[in-house]
Amino acid sequence: MTDKVVGILGVCGGQLGRMLAASASLLNVKVVILDVGTSAPAKQVLAPISTDLAHIDGSFADPEKIRELAGKVDVLTVEIEHVDVKTLEDVQGIIRNTPLAIHPSPFTIHTIQDKFRQKEHLLSQGSPVSHFLPVDSTEESVRAVAVQIGLPLMLKSRTLAYDGRGNFALRELSQIPEAISALGDRPLYAEKWVSFVKEIAVMVVRTIDGQVESYPAVETVHKDNICHLVFAPLRSRDATLAQRARAVAETAVKTFTGAGVFGVEMFLMDNGDLYINEIAPRPHNSGHYTIEACETSQYENHLRAILNLPLGSTALKVPSTVMLNLIGYSSSVEEITATTRVALTVPGASTHLYGKSECRKGRKMGHITVVADSDAQLRARLRPLLQSLPGSSADEVDRYAQAATTPGSGYSDPQPLVGIIMGSDSDLPVMLAAARILDRFRIPYELTIVSAHRTPDRLVEYARSASTRGLRTIIAGAGGAAHLPGMVAAMTALPVIGVPVKGSTLDGVDSLHSIVQMPRGIPVATVAINNSTNAGLLAVRILGAGIPSLFNAMDEYLKSLEGEVMGKVQTLEQVGWEKYEVKRT
Amino acid sequence: MTDKVVGILGVCGGQLGRMLAASASLLNVKVVILDVGTSAPAKQVLAPISTDLAHIDGSFADPEKIRELAGKVDVLTVEIEHVDVKTLEDVQGIIRNTPLAIHPSPFTIHTIQDKFRQKEHLLSQGSPVSHFLPVDSTEESVRAVAVQIGLPLMLKSRTLAYDGRGNFALRELSQIPEAISALGDRPLYAEKWVSFVKEIAVMVVRTIDGQVESYPAVETVHKDNICHLVFAPLRSRDATLAQRARAVAETAVKTFTGAGVFGVEMFLMDNGDLYINEIAPRPHNSGHYTIEACETSQYENHLRAILNLPLGSTALKVPSTVMLNLIGYSSSVEEITATTRVALTVPGASTHLYGKSECRKGRKMGHITVVADSDAQLRARLRPLLQSLPGSSADEVDRYAQAATTPGSGYSDPQPLVGIIMGSDSDLPVMLAAARILDRFRIPYELTIVSAHRTPDRLVEYARSASTRGLRTIIAGAGGAAHLPGMVAAMTALPVIGVPVKGSTLDGVDSLHSIVQMPRGIPVATVAINNSTNAGLLAVRILGAGIPSLFNAMDEYLKSLEGEVMGKVQTLEQVGWEKYEVKRT
Repeated sequence: MTDKVVGILGVCGGQLGRMLAASASLLNVKVVILDVGTSAPAKQVLAPISTDLAHIDGSFADPEKIRELAGKVDVLTVEIEHVDVKTLEDVQGIIRNTPLAIHPSPFTIHTIQDKFRQKEHLLSQGSPVSHFLPVDSTEESVRAVAVQIGLPLMLKSRTLAYDGRGNFALRELSQIPEAISALGDRPLYAEKWVSFVKEIAVMVVRTIDGQVESYPAVETVHKDNICHLVFAPLRSRDATLAQRARAVAETAVKTFTGAGVFGVEMFLMDNGDLYINEIAPRPHNSGHYTIEACETSQYENHLRAILNLPLGSTALKVPSTVMLNLIGYSSSVEEITATTRVALTVPGASTHLYGKSECRKGRKMGHITVVADSDAQLRARLRPLLQSLPGSSADEVDRYAQAATTPGSGYSDPQPLVGIIMGSDSDLPVMLAAARILDRFRIPYELTIVSAHRTPDRLVEYARSASTRGLRTIIAGAGGAAHLPGMVAAMTALPVIGVPVKGSTLDGVDSLHSIVQMPRGIPVATVAINNSTNAGLLAVRILGAGIPSLFNAMDEYLKSLEGEVMGKVQTLEQVGWEKYEVKRT
Repeated sequence: MTDKVVGILGVCGGQLGRMLAASASLLNVKVVILDVGTSAPAKQVLAPISTDLAHIDGSFADPEKIRELAGKVDVLTVEIEHVDVKTLEDVQGIIRNTPLAIHPSPFTIHTIQDKFRQKEHLLSQGSPVSHFLPVDSTEESVRAVAVQIGLPLMLKSRTLAYDGRGNFALRELSQIPEAISALGDRPLYAEKWVSFVKEIAVMVVRTIDGQVESYPAVETVHKDNICHLVFAPLRSRDATLAQRARAVAETAVKTFTGAGVFGVEMFLMDNGDLYINEIAPRPHNSGHYTIEACETSQYENHLRAILNLPLGSTALKVPSTVMLNLIGYSSSVEEITATTRVALTVPGASTHLYGKSECRKGRKMGHITVVADSDAQLRARLRPLLQSLPGSSADEVDRYAQAATTPGSGYSDPQPLVGIIMGSDSDLPVMLAAARILDRFRIPYELTIVSAHRTPDRLVEYARSASTRGLRTIIAGAGGAAHLPGMVAAMTALPVIGVPVKGSTLDGVDSLHSIVQMPRGIPVATVAINNSTNAGLLAVRILGAGIPSLFNAMDEYLKSLEGEVMGKVQTLEQVGWEKYEVKRT
């Protein structure tokens, strides 16, 4: 594939280097790892290629060791951005087969490793960031900044900050001394308090010549300031959100130099605005899910990018996925093991343990990725994993299992696959049969009233956001001049099933013709008058075209119909038709 | 997860041990590998756990080394069945934490490693095998057997045979001396010649207490007697085939002892019968695809089974997948590299190189797994990979790219997602518009005539086999007493779209009512009279509910409709309505 040798500057016992190394072994890419110890996680999964290319025992903070690594490799990449940029610049002149390439570039690392500098850079490039100001570690300076941007505000360490460490939420001026002492004597800056409604992340791959490709937008859920869950794809009532988040991330990554993947973390505000929180110039926790759920993992794409090989597809290959971090709860690994043993019983769950020698509270020991056919199936699979976490309460499990969902209105499941809507509550008796069918097949749905003529704005919002909320089919019932199914079909690319509801005149033929006789371009899948049972069954068939287990359930259902009728045949034979007639009435 | 230490008896430089080791590292399972050399493929991806648990440099044929391995581990498993059973039985008494477990059991290995003994065992257990007889390596004996089972026949070596080695196809009695000399002095047996139409394989996982779970049935395609391609899931016009193949495989694996995965290779005969060709008591080439395409890989399930952990789900998580073996073409690795470089440009392709130190003609150097949304997309992705293989001709590429497809009748794509059918050729002018829409969205389809009233048997066969041939939606058009859509819907669980075709009387209302007014239980998605354009579009929406790229294409289409009308608005404004009217006619 390539003769180039890749050097990984590993953080002490890091999982990113381990997963990068595992990816390299699939492509037979030669890798030399610099990390502390002989059995660091990355070294466990990639034995040294040769005596010449032995791994190096040392710290990423040791210039001598970095120089030693640089002398052995053609491409240098980092597992952490907190490396000494001067040393990187020094070694950049080293020539083996070709001049040493460093990805991401020292400029990018330099810009990103100081969060204040990172924000200044993004601001200067027109990327959206919340209001921030420089500040000294003095009460006076902090007080002055608080006046300017208001309280509460975040005091943040400019360097060496991650997983919430180095942040202080300043709510009152009286806390200033405490804040300064908590953050030590590191350089600081201040950020306006951002009351976000969601955290979103996008992994972006950048090629050596500056082309970018993004992975799907995801929702990240933090617990105690550490990434806890990552859901993909992002669900939202805002039909444009995912595309906007990818565009913001791609634009930002284009402003840096050097190749590889970048993790872009964003805040979503109540009004729909997005702010970039921070960018990591390397594989990122929010991209672990790509190993099982995407056509190419972030790790392989990082390697491809830094080796100047064609990038792989970033598309999801499953409908729904979640990543759960396994965070040390104590110094004992028992709690982690408890969860991984549960994971063995969860279909679609893949466990990744990082081979770290010691467990510590707050340490990332592994992760579990779960894939599923639908968001609802995903939550059902996630729930026992959350329950197994140490100290988890029922409330907490509910909160996290329901995180990243976008409930509709009315009678609803938080992760519906089918929307049942009707023009009026008078249609409800007819439409309930569709709901009963979906119940029977355990398909999550929402049921509500949307009137084309009386709530046209609601109609537009409902139809336009249906797909980004995760719906895959809509059943719409209406009577008379029945416009609802056709108008919904005009505003979504999802399949729409129309149920003509019989009114007091014309026997439902008016509704039937209003629904079925759609113009060329916009189809409505029409079923028989008042037959919402069949609308429910059709929704199951439509979903079953993409979900094999549902297809099989429908197949069973057809057999049960046959069995039912054959039962009646038998009764008729036994009882005789005269008595059977009497019995039926 | 477990404290047990697993020992892998590796074949020299084997890939199965490598993939098993990679799987073990994800679960932090401790593994000791016995294989020749210090940088055997498996040892590359799993550094020794500790000094006590160092890997062993030696051959799987060396009893001393096996004893050394057995002394270090709790569970012993094999990468190859050609191991010395006596040595295994000898070491079984070794006790470390618990008595040494050997999986598969020495009995299973003993039974399987001699193909004649394997066949006798299967026959005695009622599993389907073709006619076979013992034979001595003498002309006389072979001649006698040829009289009994007829020519041509296969003379096979009972032991150490794989990838077609150890087989001789005896077509004429005059070849007997040549056959005996070719097969050397190894023990032989004779098998009736099997003119199979397809080769099928099923991976089965067996737990320690004898429960079995099977993976989906796959079609294997061989080239020069070596596995070349594996397609999953199996497609067939025989709606029961995949289930029957899994049942045959599960039943056979139940008759063995010990835990782990088993690969069951079968022949499909013209009349639908299945014969077991052979069984491998270990991970198998026909199961490599499970790494990317199933919820749990065969490697992880092998580990789970032998460690007495719960088995993982064997379900496919993608609609269609193929595995291409990378076989050495010469002693140079250049040809392999050429194909892997092409793989980097193919979406959904994952490359696995085995890290073998030398390339040789016929040696398995790696494999590529491709996943896709549909069989047709899969074939399109596979084609450039086949073209990159050394010495591949256009004919050969066509043959292999079209392998494992099940063409329907009439105008057809070999991997259709949609079936367009009509009751009569007089419906064709109306139904062609649906085909045009599918062309526009590049959705493969088949188009043919199926008359409910005049070809009822064809109707049954068409509808019953639709899903196992890979169809996901059917569009059926009919006029008058239009029974076709409803009857098809009664015999398949796929969504069926009905197009009422207007006849010479009643303006098509007869067809509309015949199609839409289906009884409860069996829905038909009905579109407007003669509007097969909308039927095509509805099919796209239905497929798009499960295939994001098609959903996006439909979204674009809706925008283009809007653009079209807005263009007309502009023209109307510019030209004025009097002239516009004239212009239109």
